[in-house]
Amino acid sequence: MAELRRELIARRWVVITTENPKGPEDYPSLRPPVSLQEPEGPCPFCPGNEGMTPPETFSLRTDGNRWSVRVIPNKFPFFHIEGEFDRRAEGIYDVMEALGAHEIVVESPEHQQGFASMDPSQIKRILFAYRARCLDLAKDPRFQQILIVKNYPGVFHHHPHSHLLAMPVVPRRIDEEIGGTLEHYQRKERCIFCDVIKEEISDGKRVILETRHFLVFCPFASRYPFETWIIPKVHSPDFHTITEEMMGDLSGGLQATLGRFHQLLADPPYSLAIHSSPIQHRFHRDEFHWHMEMRLRVGMGEGFEWATGFYVNPTPPENAAAFLRNAR
Amino acid sequence: MAELRRELIARRWVVITTENPKGPEDYPSLRPPVSLQEPEGPCPFCPGNEGMTPPETFSLRTDGNRWSVRVIPNKFPFFHIEGEFDRRAEGIYDVMEALGAHEIVVESPEHQQGFASMDPSQIKRILFAYRARCLDLAKDPRFQQILIVKNYPGVFHHHPHSHLLAMPVVPRRIDEEIGGTLEHYQRKERCIFCDVIKEEISDGKRVILETRHFLVFCPFASRYPFETWIIPKVHSPDFHTITEEMMGDLSGGLQATLGRFHQLLADPPYSLAIHSSPIQHRFHRDEFHWHMEMRLRVGMGEGFEWATGFYVNPTPPENAAAFLRNAR
Repeated sequence: MAELRRELIARRWVVITTENPKGPEDYPSLRPPVSLQEPEGPCPFCPGNEGMTPPETFSLRTDGNRWSVRVIPNKFPFFHIEGEFDRRAEGIYDVMEALGAHEIVVESPEHQQGFASMDPSQIKRILFAYRARCLDLAKDPRFQQILIVKNYPGVFHHHPHSHLLAMPVVPRRIDEEIGGTLEHYQRKERCIFCDVIKEEISDGKRVILETRHFLVFCPFASRYPFETWIIPKVHSPDFHTITEEMMGDLSGGLQATLGRFHQLLADPPYSLAIHSSPIQHRFHRDEFHWHMEMRLRVGMGEGFEWATGFYVNPTPPENAAAFLRNAR
Repeated sequence: MAELRRELIARRWVVITTENPKGPEDYPSLRPPVSLQEPEGPCPFCPGNEGMTPPETFSLRTDGNRWSVRVIPNKFPFFHIEGEFDRRAEGIYDVMEALGAHEIVVESPEHQQGFASMDPSQIKRILFAYRARCLDLAKDPRFQQILIVKNYPGVFHHHPHSHLLAMPVVPRRIDEEIGGTLEHYQRKERCIFCDVIKEEISDGKRVILETRHFLVFCPFASRYPFETWIIPKVHSPDFHTITEEMMGDLSGGLQATLGRFHQLLADPPYSLAIHSSPIQHRFHRDEFHWHMEMRLRVGMGEGFEWATGFYVNPTPPENAAAFLRNAR
């Protein structure tokens, strides 16, 4: 048997298997959907090879001149920074140049590293670099949305890195969330994410862990097995307003969360994204609530998801959270 | 460089690489995201093993008692047919039983077969079975949407089969299309799909082939490399109203299309879906236009797609269509 659960925010229905739910032992084939083979030749993200990348836009340096985190423009960007939008019709269709920014955050000088094994102080430096670049890119009035995405391991390069994208339009996934938040706010004059946080803390069965400032939980209508959200417990629309103290707290929370995944599922491949309020829409400040979403890169019904927009998840979030709570 | 193209119907922006676009030779790693290992033991879909499946809901039989196409309820359904919806709240969330139907269309008695190598008369039998089951399930007032999805090769079983799903809600992907079609119809009193067909035929550069009744083309804002749509040239909201003659024509078109994919990309894994009008919404008859969508199961930026709802496609549809037009 299965049930249909509705995502409270994006309002999408998800099929969740409640009979014979799948646990960690059912995912022996957890592996990235792309080859684990690294490209041949020297790694452009390793120290000593800085000349292989475009000049950096930001770095954190510790002793002497050694960098600990380094941000560079992507050599093969989805969005490019120069040029005009050139919005135009092509026949009956709409098209424009993909203006924006696409930067790579090189997360460590070490070639093999994951959040699970990284020192929290290094994770904090990464968060610091995210914030610095977000603050800078948010000044550009051409951009509507900044998104941070990390694939572990990376799709092409395995050296730990994340992508920072500034986009000229609000992407669909954020747009769906905004639709849900606005509707809720108009009805109740409350942030829907804040309501979710209260519900999850009081119910408890989908909670993985709590830190001083953050709640880590599996959402009620989890689209993927072991889907996990990390959200600040106090209302906060923009990631880039995060304080130093919260970054320290979050880095510990991230390390603990990924450590549990590592324990439970043997270093699984995952994607992590930071959803923050669109930067030019000042009217979303009361409704939107920034958060991190994390999913394992494993899909059961990927043909269905594409064909229908329905997600099918054979691991109920209550089970996932219990497994993760107890993993050490 | 890249451009942002807007899907005309679902109105989603897609990033399409226009500089150094990728061609077929750039996809040597085309392979299903799941293991090609078949489960051990006898195949439940092979002749002689009919006892391993639930009793069939439909079959086509040729000489004697041998079946050529067989439809059975899925043993592990996403949607189950018995029970009550039991719509309820769980805390602040919405949940209901996943009532519906989930049937498997076993497409051939032969264990190894694809549309590329199948006789068109057998493809026609499969279409006939699709239509028969759609007509039957459409009578059930609990269902709002019927969808047909085929994964090649199958995710678990490799014996050629497709999934037929009757759902109690309209799934997100169809809902997005309906949003676009309604808006267009209100403004122009024309079906947006019909406009796309005219544009594509007159432009020609994204057309792969035409049959008497169907257009096969790569859509302007293709989300995936070599994304392909097959659409009836005359307005038609419901797949299940297809005539015998159109089924014959479509089976030839499908065979030719998949044959070209086979030629160009060496038997690539793909998913295919039939999008038809929601069955209970009689008011969508002038706007919605049924069609088949096909995508290769290859993704470049799958972390991004999930995180953002943005698709990144490194193969412009004009290039994809030209490659496929010329493949024989």
